Amino acid sequence: MATKDLQDSSKEEAPKKALISSTRSSVVDNFKSKRKTEFDIDQVFKSLLNGNITALSRAITLIESTKLEDKPLAQQLLQQCLPYSNRSIRIGITGVPGVGKSTFIESFGSLMATESNKIAVLAVDPSSSISKGSVLGDKTRMQQLANHPDVYIRPSAAGSTLGGVARKTRETILLCEAFGFNTIIVETVGVGQSETVVHSMVDFFLVLKLSGAGDELQGIKRGIIELADSIVINKADGDNLQRAKIAKTDFSRALKLYPPKENGWKPKVLLTSAIENKGMVEVQNLIQEYIKVSKENLSFEKKRQLQNKFWLFQAIEEYLKDSFYQKPKIKDALQQQLKAIEEHKITPFAAAQYLISLL
Amino acid sequence: MATKDLQDSSKEEAPKKALISSTRSSVVDNFKSKRKTEFDIDQVFKSLLNGNITALSRAITLIESTKLEDKPLAQQLLQQCLPYSNRSIRIGITGVPGVGKSTFIESFGSLMATESNKIAVLAVDPSSSISKGSVLGDKTRMQQLANHPDVYIRPSAAGSTLGGVARKTRETILLCEAFGFNTIIVETVGVGQSETVVHSMVDFFLVLKLSGAGDELQGIKRGIIELADSIVINKADGDNLQRAKIAKTDFSRALKLYPPKENGWKPKVLLTSAIENKGMVEVQNLIQEYIKVSKENLSFEKKRQLQNKFWLFQAIEEYLKDSFYQKPKIKDALQQQLKAIEEHKITPFAAAQYLISLL
Repeated sequence: MATKDLQDSSKEEAPKKALISSTRSSVVDNFKSKRKTEFDIDQVFKSLLNGNITALSRAITLIESTKLEDKPLAQQLLQQCLPYSNRSIRIGITGVPGVGKSTFIESFGSLMATESNKIAVLAVDPSSSISKGSVLGDKTRMQQLANHPDVYIRPSAAGSTLGGVARKTRETILLCEAFGFNTIIVETVGVGQSETVVHSMVDFFLVLKLSGAGDELQGIKRGIIELADSIVINKADGDNLQRAKIAKTDFSRALKLYPPKENGWKPKVLLTSAIENKGMVEVQNLIQEYIKVSKENLSFEKKRQLQNKFWLFQAIEEYLKDSFYQKPKIKDALQQQLKAIEEHKITPFAAAQYLISLL
Repeated sequence: MATKDLQDSSKEEAPKKALISSTRSSVVDNFKSKRKTEFDIDQVFKSLLNGNITALSRAITLIESTKLEDKPLAQQLLQQCLPYSNRSIRIGITGVPGVGKSTFIESFGSLMATESNKIAVLAVDPSSSISKGSVLGDKTRMQQLANHPDVYIRPSAAGSTLGGVARKTRETILLCEAFGFNTIIVETVGVGQSETVVHSMVDFFLVLKLSGAGDELQGIKRGIIELADSIVINKADGDNLQRAKIAKTDFSRALKLYPPKENGWKPKVLLTSAIENKGMVEVQNLIQEYIKVSKENLSFEKKRQLQNKFWLFQAIEEYLKDSFYQKPKIKDALQQQLKAIEEHKITPFAAAQYLISLL
């Protein structure tokens, strides 16, 4: 039955919940009988390659599953998708709440999306499970884009840690690329370290800003200018236009204090008005120029290689830390040691040594 | 004999090597007889508190020892020094080679050092063991300061890893504070991540810069503006003065794009000419203002607490990583997995999982 669904794209509009749960149980069933499993993962994979959106949703659900028995299946599927993962461009977009991120993605995505340039929009939002103020939880904020035939919007993966969410998003990118999306947009509101995480999974990193009042532009997070391949000042319209222009000059000057990035790119500042659909062509051109230049000087591939290696080390180190700090005896002792440090009773190194000795 | 030396400060000028090796053998001997050990560490500690410079050098040598049997003694000594560690200010200074760091520290240190404000200058230079181009390896570069009665200059600790060097420097700070140094200057040339490391062990972080030609100031490292409590443009003299003034304006503008630091401090840009001893009073005043403000709003103590906790986690995580990556079977398999990732044969997460499964 699952197989039939996968090939019948007219069933796409069926209630998601029902579809997902039937997939999930079939996946588990199949796991019990190995031969059937292989057949099915293979089917999902083939349907994915053929651009079946239901297969994509199911594949993502499998990736996001926390059940142990789903993990080998997920890995098998990813392994099959891997050869198809290098044919898209990945764009990261970050900006504080209120900067107009949804409107920007709606306007920019509508311009970019064509039959030959299909777009997937994913979100990394570590706070969504708690605050429910999810960036993409509510697709209505990008209604026009959500209904576009060449666009796929996927809300933030659930997860208790940023590492978990990041991993799922990264794996989802692979699935989307195998499916045939040419442009992957990963957005984040920049909670915790999420913009660093998104920066490590994209080719081009765009920071959305507002022009602030007076001297000081509001709320640019430390470290973010360093990451930006472009700073885009949004809401450059109406009364705001003049301030936006001043902000553009200020940021351009500030960016000149840094040397070009390792790949030779000099980050640029642009103005947009997402609500008036202004400036989007310039953003598109800038990204295309970046991709062209970085493919020519081979930094595109080099950056992806570095990112892949980064994720290897990241995954290992996360595992090592988690398995250390989650040991009950470490948990208790850590609190005591932190208190002792606070009271100047022990040096941090002696405390570390003590905790390690508990292993 | 060692005990006698410790109390006889007139012997300070005795050949260092002889003194150090006699300390080392007595420490090891004492380790064999526990009661004697306790007595001796206690003596070293008392001499330290009394401001005996030979005791300080011996204590640092003990801290830097890589012998297993010295470690408990070192920890015991640090434990005793800990209550005296909160009565100094710690200043970090970084800048690329050629910025005039030694001359700056010489000029600045000479101004700061008085009988009631004793200064210790330490270096974090992860490259010194390899390149021998050590920042402070050659004290002749700071000859005037090295001969100052209220200044102690200690070359960079040897160590194979930045983590090791950093740990020893941090522990040396405690010893220097117990000794009675009121101002600790930690300098680094900024190789690798060393400026981040130094930033994590000081109260005030000063970035030395040169004014460059034209548009773009040379070689400011990404991330460094974020760390600076002050940017000081050195060599603001002669033909360079005009360019230095322009650089000051540029950096001041750039700094305004960031919100104030968590403790409310707005980093400031100053001009100096170390060689002409100009601008040093302003640097001193700025640091004093910073200390005053941050002590008043309690961020001084808060920052030190955070730094202590940071070092606890840092030490644990370094240990976890080292003991993982140094396992022979991991070493070999890691190279294979990196190659497979490069050839797009495996996802980074699957590779990580495989490596972890080898444990």
